[in-house]
Amino acid sequence: MSSTDGHRVGILGASGYAGAELMRLCAQHPSFEIAFASAESQAGVAVGSLYPSLAADYPTMEFGHWEEVPEGLDIVFVALSHGVSQEVIPHLVAKHIIDLGADFRLDDPALYPTWYGWEHPAPELLADFVLGVPELFRDELRGAAAIAVPGCYVTTATLALAPLLVAGLIEPTGIVVNGVSGVSGAGRGATAGTSFSAVNETFAPYGLLTHRHTPEMEMILTRVAGEKAELLFTPHLAPMTRGILATCYARPSGDHDTEALLETMSSRYAGEPFVSVLTGIPTTKATLGSNAIHMTARRDQRTGWVIAIAALDNLVKGASGQAIQCANLAIGIDEASGLARAGVYP
Amino acid sequence: MSSTDGHRVGILGASGYAGAELMRLCAQHPSFEIAFASAESQAGVAVGSLYPSLAADYPTMEFGHWEEVPEGLDIVFVALSHGVSQEVIPHLVAKHIIDLGADFRLDDPALYPTWYGWEHPAPELLADFVLGVPELFRDELRGAAAIAVPGCYVTTATLALAPLLVAGLIEPTGIVVNGVSGVSGAGRGATAGTSFSAVNETFAPYGLLTHRHTPEMEMILTRVAGEKAELLFTPHLAPMTRGILATCYARPSGDHDTEALLETMSSRYAGEPFVSVLTGIPTTKATLGSNAIHMTARRDQRTGWVIAIAALDNLVKGASGQAIQCANLAIGIDEASGLARAGVYP
Amino acid sequence: MSSTDGHRVGILGASGYAGAELMRLCAQHPSFEIAFASAESQAGVAVGSLYPSLAADYPTMEFGHWEEVPEGLDIVFVALSHGVSQEVIPHLVAKHIIDLGADFRLDDPALYPTWYGWEHPAPELLADFVLGVPELFRDELRGAAAIAVPGCYVTTATLALAPLLVAGLIEPTGIVVNGVSGVSGAGRGATAGTSFSAVNETFAPYGLLTHRHTPEMEMILTRVAGEKAELLFTPHLAPMTRGILATCYARPSGDHDTEALLETMSSRYAGEPFVSVLTGIPTTKATLGSNAIHMTARRDQRTGWVIAIAALDNLVKGASGQAIQCANLAIGIDEASGLARAGVYP
Amino acid sequence: MSSTDGHRVGILGASGYAGAELMRLCAQHPSFEIAFASAESQAGVAVGSLYPSLAADYPTMEFGHWEEVPEGLDIVFVALSHGVSQEVIPHLVAKHIIDLGADFRLDDPALYPTWYGWEHPAPELLADFVLGVPELFRDELRGAAAIAVPGCYVTTATLALAPLLVAGLIEPTGIVVNGVSGVSGAGRGATAGTSFSAVNETFAPYGLLTHRHTPEMEMILTRVAGEKAELLFTPHLAPMTRGILATCYARPSGDHDTEALLETMSSRYAGEPFVSVLTGIPTTKATLGSNAIHMTARRDQRTGWVIAIAALDNLVKGASGQAIQCANLAIGIDEASGLARAGVYP
Repeated sequence: MSSTDGHRVGILGASGYAGAELMRLCAQHPSFEIAFASAESQAGVAVGSLYPSLAADYPTMEFGHWEEVPEGLDIVFVALSHGVSQEVIPHLVAKHIIDLGADFRLDDPALYPTWYGWEHPAPELLADFVLGVPELFRDELRGAAAIAVPGCYVTTATLALAPLLVAGLIEPTGIVVNGVSGVSGAGRGATAGTSFSAVNETFAPYGLLTHRHTPEMEMILTRVAGEKAELLFTPHLAPMTRGILATCYARPSGDHDTEALLETMSSRYAGEPFVSVLTGIPTTKATLGSNAIHMTARRDQRTGWVIAIAALDNLVKGASGQAIQCANLAIGIDEASGLARAGVYP
Repeated sequence: MSSTDGHRVGILGASGYAGAELMRLCAQHPSFEIAFASAESQAGVAVGSLYPSLAADYPTMEFGHWEEVPEGLDIVFVALSHGVSQEVIPHLVAKHIIDLGADFRLDDPALYPTWYGWEHPAPELLADFVLGVPELFRDELRGAAAIAVPGCYVTTATLALAPLLVAGLIEPTGIVVNGVSGVSGAGRGATAGTSFSAVNETFAPYGLLTHRHTPEMEMILTRVAGEKAELLFTPHLAPMTRGILATCYARPSGDHDTEALLETMSSRYAGEPFVSVLTGIPTTKATLGSNAIHMTARRDQRTGWVIAIAALDNLVKGASGQAIQCANLAIGIDEASGLARAGVYP
Repeated sequence: MSSTDGHRVGILGASGYAGAELMRLCAQHPSFEIAFASAESQAGVAVGSLYPSLAADYPTMEFGHWEEVPEGLDIVFVALSHGVSQEVIPHLVAKHIIDLGADFRLDDPALYPTWYGWEHPAPELLADFVLGVPELFRDELRGAAAIAVPGCYVTTATLALAPLLVAGLIEPTGIVVNGVSGVSGAGRGATAGTSFSAVNETFAPYGLLTHRHTPEMEMILTRVAGEKAELLFTPHLAPMTRGILATCYARPSGDHDTEALLETMSSRYAGEPFVSVLTGIPTTKATLGSNAIHMTARRDQRTGWVIAIAALDNLVKGASGQAIQCANLAIGIDEASGLARAGVYP
Repeated sequence: MSSTDGHRVGILGASGYAGAELMRLCAQHPSFEIAFASAESQAGVAVGSLYPSLAADYPTMEFGHWEEVPEGLDIVFVALSHGVSQEVIPHLVAKHIIDLGADFRLDDPALYPTWYGWEHPAPELLADFVLGVPELFRDELRGAAAIAVPGCYVTTATLALAPLLVAGLIEPTGIVVNGVSGVSGAGRGATAGTSFSAVNETFAPYGLLTHRHTPEMEMILTRVAGEKAELLFTPHLAPMTRGILATCYARPSGDHDTEALLETMSSRYAGEPFVSVLTGIPTTKATLGSNAIHMTARRDQRTGWVIAIAALDNLVKGASGQAIQCANLAIGIDEASGLARAGVYP
């Protein structure tokens, strides 16, 4: 492909981990060329100075201010903090806008005061955004002008539960999602709670009862189930940099055994480039650095519970990789372009 | 205390992690003196050669064979593999035998074929063993001649759930125990699954549906609840050496809010030297190297679930520390002797 | 490129970490197609069963026996254990053989008894192998039929020291190479010394005075310096999976300051696709999963020492990535094909 | 010992990691009772709130301001930041003041501008402080009123090198100290450079040429050698919480082989409660949580170098444990009181 065939890309919020991951993935993408990258706190700083890992691919690029984003870009990825992207996005002009934040994910503006503590400033825009989960909403994503990529925990849990809900194998309420994340999900900012000495060699829950990914999960599962889904989500922090694993517990709505659960998952995701349904056990490490999601399911005949488990890399399939997968769909090229399926193992 | 006041201690299976932890803790104990330590695979090897950390405290001691254990010891700790201690213990003569393995934990011999795959060779001995959880069975432990210390996950989950069950605040069935352990729980033996490169930077479940700590949890909770308890236990491996955290989900049997749950926990464990009930969040690291267990609880008014969470060091309160706490009770000295409450933090 | 333009590749010893990394990298390579992968200990096992990370890219491939390698392959990568490849390679027929082991690295067969403890069985073949360091021996590698890729520590230390030696800025003897490696350098085999619990949260040297990468470093540095180089190499194990960092101390042969050292490094490696000379500090993580090597140098005016420091991913630039870079040169395509420069960060 | 026999202790700067470690160790000490703990940034906060690990031992204690320190304490440990303790210490009244910071370590005030960038405000006090390394300066420490405990790297490297220098087995100049530390050495404060995601799975040097522990090492080694010692110190950060390992390279001043080096070390430290001289290899983990230091030495006959290696826990023997060992000496009780020799392993 000649350079005139390339797709010109902008990244807002490029100094965060999701932004940096977009830059890494775009450097490997056959047709994406980063034309602009902003980071308010790092404006004027060389990309390679903040991220030596990116120095060779972006030897002369500096972070700018988002207001300087050129018009006419094919794609603008927005990796700004929650609450900021809603201020910025109304000003953007680009063929495809792909937001990695939470501001345009929920379809019901009433959920924002409850879970985020603020009124949504542009509720009329919520309907413009397609939810960025290709495995669930692919048709809407083709050619979409505005896409909201869901949270990392959300992609993990909903892709594991959706096939079982759609097939009517589990009840849509009473679900427990026990989630575990690596520390990079907390972002690049330094806090006492994410310092190495505080986090290493420890395991702990956080955000009990109130984590903001809860309403996203319920919204998506309600949509695919066709009836109201309700769940309790409990996130935990594990001493690792990347990776999310969700262990989901649900009540069965029939007698289906483990084999039936696995068959339902497998047939639902047949042909998906990034989904692997395992009879064995998913591990986050098998997906590290890749856009893969690995999952399995079990039926415990003794207690009656159904378990659905999925693992992915929170910065790739859980954020930037999924955003690129969505961008590929939006602009109409091979959905898997530029994205690895093999994790960096070990 | 003069040396003639010391309690003479033997350790069988001293080369494993629980055995080595017993040796570390006994070196700090004001009256325990290790008179003998066996390790079949390391017989004739200097303790300090296998464990340089123990060289200064045991400069001349070598591992022996268990048959060489002297008679007349005050305490013999048995830290042998499951299935081995049942062969050895009938031959032991000591004032107090404290088994850290699984062979004498279950009161119903019929559970062994189901969960362990073998018939118990000495079912008549099961009734001789007191279960080694001082917070639940203290009176039976005073002066006890034979004690079976429960599994690390078992102590964690049952101490978190017991107060709520005893007080009738949660239903005894339909419970989910989502457990997470550090790698030392797998023991010192080298396996592909516990090599550093395989385990580091990953998170994964294991033993789905079939983990052997399940019937222990159900037995203890049934005993304290006075009615049949049933639960699904799902263990996971986290990339850390020590630590267990159990996140337990149960259905409430009333309207009790978070405050009521915490009050029930606190009053049940008031005066316990090693239990801390937190309004904040337990982390495994706060307990590292100590005999402490930290716990909390929450009621989710939205979905109705009750969460009980506990954390401890799997090799101390989850094994060797609890064994020493039990030994202190058995011989009638201060229950907290030789055991730290403060974790090595950070 | 149509599939008929692809290069057919075989991998012997594909179940080890270097072999698995070759499979990951070949899946991303624009023209390499793996036609065969052997692993004696895993023959008949599905690739995706041993490495779930590779399941999506190699859904039907099984490991075979090396004797089954088809003739006429464009490239055969040999990732067998030291001492095994020398038995296998004389039987191979392929356009380009690229050995990742030690058996054909040293040009002087007399070094094998000293450092490896065995006589070389085919010393007449040693001269056929070009050493696989493109930055130092690129001209010889173009079209080469047999290539021996050096050890991970060797690439790290020699690429850092070579420019300074070639330019006569440091003395070729009295050098100290203090090397640090992640645990994956020890391979996939499970040993007590590389179990997670033994290695995590610890730092230690190993192989004092006798590590086998020493004569490789001396051979390469002697070759580039044009006079006998001698050094003491001390490897250490750090609690991380991937990454090597070498901190090299040498005596200066002139008054050159830090700036002059950095200029010499930079000009020597100008245009190299995978070498970054930093004024800042190299970290292993900036190179993770990529074929990059990052380096810097300092002159301590106070004590007179010169320090040269380099970092890379031991499984990529230190092994499989460098092997592919060499293969690209051997078959005459873009040297950087299929290899990332950006590390997976964080 | 009745409580009237206890020694009343104050800790200034108790919210940092060294301060918290003092609180953990004092809780295990047979006669130390913490009467006061200050932390300017945490004044009014409950100790157990900041450090849940300490909640059980200090259930009601809150951090105060240093000005509130009661007079007449037996011991005041000062764990304040560099540059702060020199402002505070002149105002303290206590039988024994033990400073863990750098402000009173160097005997030559001229070194402070060079290495710290400020003039010493109270140079006349420098001579009052005894350096807190019992193995080297025990006689001066008995009954000492003012003690300056050296830096963590300093204790590690100087205890390894001192016996060889004193015995004249190595040259006092041209020494290289390659140091490696866990992240807790950077303290509790959150910085981008010590966040988990930045530090985990990476290895890197820092402070090239300019680390402030350099002049301390040179001062101590000059004192024990009786002639000017000079060295290059290069610190590195390893992805672990605790632990320091120093690999020291020196030129021999004779023909002494490895056995002679080890004998010199062993006889120099015979009877030391916390020093283990190993023929094997020191690891930081064997010392974790304990006051032990493990060391070894080698002579490389091929290149002529001598290597001396030592490992310890930077927060115990490298800081708070050594401070307590010094305090024990100062007040005239058993030097090993309250300090473990066995590391928490694994």
